[in-house]
Amino acid sequence: MHPTIATSVLAIIGYFTITNIIPQASPFFIHRGLFGKDMSKRGKPIIPESIGIIPAITYLFIMFLSIPFFFIKSSTGGKFNNLISLNNSTDTWLSSLPSYLSSMLSLESMILLGLIDDLFDIRWRHKFFLPAIASIPLIIIYYLEFNKTSILIPNFISNYLQLNSNSIDLGIFYYIYMFSISIFCPNSINILAGINGIEVGQTIIIAILLILNDLYYILGHHLLSGNSLLLQSAYEIHIFSLSLLIPFISISIALFNFNKYPSKVFVGDTWCYFSGMVFAVLGISGHYAKTLMLFFIPQIINFIYSSPQLFGLIPCPRHRLPKFNEIDGLMYNSFTEYFNNEIDDINNEKKKPILKSYLKPILSLLSKLKLIKLEYNEKGDIIKSSNLTLINLVIIWFGPHNEGELCSLIMKLQFFVGFTMLVLRHSIAPIIFGFDNSWSMLNRFYI
Amino acid sequence: MHPTIATSVLAIIGYFTITNIIPQASPFFIHRGLFGKDMSKRGKPIIPESIGIIPAITYLFIMFLSIPFFFIKSSTGGKFNNLISLNNSTDTWLSSLPSYLSSMLSLESMILLGLIDDLFDIRWRHKFFLPAIASIPLIIIYYLEFNKTSILIPNFISNYLQLNSNSIDLGIFYYIYMFSISIFCPNSINILAGINGIEVGQTIIIAILLILNDLYYILGHHLLSGNSLLLQSAYEIHIFSLSLLIPFISISIALFNFNKYPSKVFVGDTWCYFSGMVFAVLGISGHYAKTLMLFFIPQIINFIYSSPQLFGLIPCPRHRLPKFNEIDGLMYNSFTEYFNNEIDDINNEKKKPILKSYLKPILSLLSKLKLIKLEYNEKGDIIKSSNLTLINLVIIWFGPHNEGELCSLIMKLQFFVGFTMLVLRHSIAPIIFGFDNSWSMLNRFYI
Repeated sequence: MHPTIATSVLAIIGYFTITNIIPQASPFFIHRGLFGKDMSKRGKPIIPESIGIIPAITYLFIMFLSIPFFFIKSSTGGKFNNLISLNNSTDTWLSSLPSYLSSMLSLESMILLGLIDDLFDIRWRHKFFLPAIASIPLIIIYYLEFNKTSILIPNFISNYLQLNSNSIDLGIFYYIYMFSISIFCPNSINILAGINGIEVGQTIIIAILLILNDLYYILGHHLLSGNSLLLQSAYEIHIFSLSLLIPFISISIALFNFNKYPSKVFVGDTWCYFSGMVFAVLGISGHYAKTLMLFFIPQIINFIYSSPQLFGLIPCPRHRLPKFNEIDGLMYNSFTEYFNNEIDDINNEKKKPILKSYLKPILSLLSKLKLIKLEYNEKGDIIKSSNLTLINLVIIWFGPHNEGELCSLIMKLQFFVGFTMLVLRHSIAPIIFGFDNSWSMLNRFYI
Repeated sequence: MHPTIATSVLAIIGYFTITNIIPQASPFFIHRGLFGKDMSKRGKPIIPESIGIIPAITYLFIMFLSIPFFFIKSSTGGKFNNLISLNNSTDTWLSSLPSYLSSMLSLESMILLGLIDDLFDIRWRHKFFLPAIASIPLIIIYYLEFNKTSILIPNFISNYLQLNSNSIDLGIFYYIYMFSISIFCPNSINILAGINGIEVGQTIIIAILLILNDLYYILGHHLLSGNSLLLQSAYEIHIFSLSLLIPFISISIALFNFNKYPSKVFVGDTWCYFSGMVFAVLGISGHYAKTLMLFFIPQIINFIYSSPQLFGLIPCPRHRLPKFNEIDGLMYNSFTEYFNNEIDDINNEKKKPILKSYLKPILSLLSKLKLIKLEYNEKGDIIKSSNLTLINLVIIWFGPHNEGELCSLIMKLQFFVGFTMLVLRHSIAPIIFGFDNSWSMLNRFYI
């Protein structure tokens, strides 16, 4: 059985399993204290939290059960061959059994550490590095088995540096690069949160974009009937990637059905870490981390846009989710408030931070560029600025929305940006990197 | 660096890490509702529960970081060779990288499922099979890579069955056998519980016995300077086993320091499942499951002795731990009570089960054999029988003890039984199995 068919069948079983388990398990989560208040609903109902652990574990066992469909032992000895491999090439990484197993170890470690974070509320500066810890098995096995540390660089840079090839060996920095990918993906998904459905919704969009990218290569292989060795290994990589993404998207949709507006469950850090790690593992092991980053542009923008609050330049309230208006049921911008004069202090029990004076002209400029929203007191001082999240930015641009529509709007924007990047990736990138855009050459990109 | 040295260094680091983390993490466990009452102390203090997750995760990461010390890629191609392998033999299972990684996946799955059990109190009939689920990766990779399904049988049986060899191919039943081992080890440790320190204490004793068994083979190898191929693979297996047990015993002792009488922490099902799975993985992958069972004799006895209560023949109260006497501070037998006549029913709000009449003579006989303790009412009816646990049996035989002494007594008995079995295993077994007791032949046992 072709591995994509096997994982598709398991994906369907997984979908129905999750759909059955979530409603049954939810009361036990609440009973254990794993719940949160939905701040953007009337009456702020209590919703079970960390439900993402259910699809995450389901995914893991789908991947375990898929192993016999991916790998078969060659009759010649102890080496494993990939079932889909036509030429026994050993230069693809994901298609080796130790690499596959180490990817699963990293995923499982991420689930375990994510669950522990959900349980014990690990401090932000510690939890930021949990994905790096989880990626240790992946990176150790990469080092032992593959240890290719070169990446492609654009043509004009290699010309400028007078290099003989258009790749550069990063050495130890390649490992730092891999750790960075594994830290970035889970954390960036984790901070693009705050409205019903967005945590799962964004991962579905990224998965769809990655599947389109896989199909581009697989289609290319079939069109050109795979006469090139390089094309063959690109084909293998993307069959693998596809086989891993089909169950992922299936379990994500099963979860999304419960998490979308109005949420019946919250997904928890477990989900954000787990799904981010799935992408990191695919990017690292498929050697297409740069392409992956193209599909993370909304998350990258959200991270950069958030950084003044994340790094304390601008005060960061405990929650930055948009403000729910009980009257019209729409989501409006949320703000961080500033403290302006000493008289206020006496009237306010909570001490508000002062807006640093050098930031005032910057905030005013950003406000004029429609990048933030400000509120002033009667003296003309800034008393509030909108919280620096992508969700707030979308509200500034597109106006207040119902929570469900807002999530759907962000997902559409995300798909639009990602799809544009996908097209550019396969049209402009070959020119920059010095390849013509033929199928047989294109596949060299993943190396 | 020799892998045993590498894992020893990591073991020491792990020991101090755990010793540091447990006191810091304990309040967070209590805060999350993970705590239990210590029933055998004055005032029944609240103790953090499920602390076993801390050494379990520490162990896992020690094993991840050990990978480069176990495996190195051969210069000839994609195959991994074991660092300690002298002859590149591929017939040992644990020493292949996929096998090692799949063992880690099963261990990590067991930790994850154990934690979920601790959190959500999974029903007994479901949780019994959690170890089987966790062992899926191990068994799939065993099938793919090794698929040796024959076991040695005693000489007289092979003579009786007129077989040509002294091994028998179990086929599919070998996989059922492996699943059974992985179900038995964690569950049998889980039910030998109820006094401070016993959960961890018993795993320390089993680990010591396994280390002695490993040292027997390793010593044999050095004495005979390894001129036999079979001896070589036995040597590799036991170096591996030793390298995995050294960190295990180190993290166990770190945990025991907190769990021993008077307990500062409880270890939770997580620990019992995890430690049982470590042994199951070693037994399965080292192909010495039969020897392993010799060191589980107290757990086997406890399981058989408990079975009338586990399977509902005799009523099973929620807790079967021995009864703490607040006056003298000693542990006495605990009892299950029976309901005798209908008048009692009116006076008792809790309905007690009736002792089945055919069991009365059996219980009386067992009582005369000092295997259980009974209490009678003035009419001579049995109103109470001691709970069927090994701990209660030890109290019947050796009298009431202080909780710490009782745990220490059971550990000593366990070591005595296990060590006797170890000696018998290496003296009588070769005769039964038709080998003479020379080092070079002995090693064939693990195949």
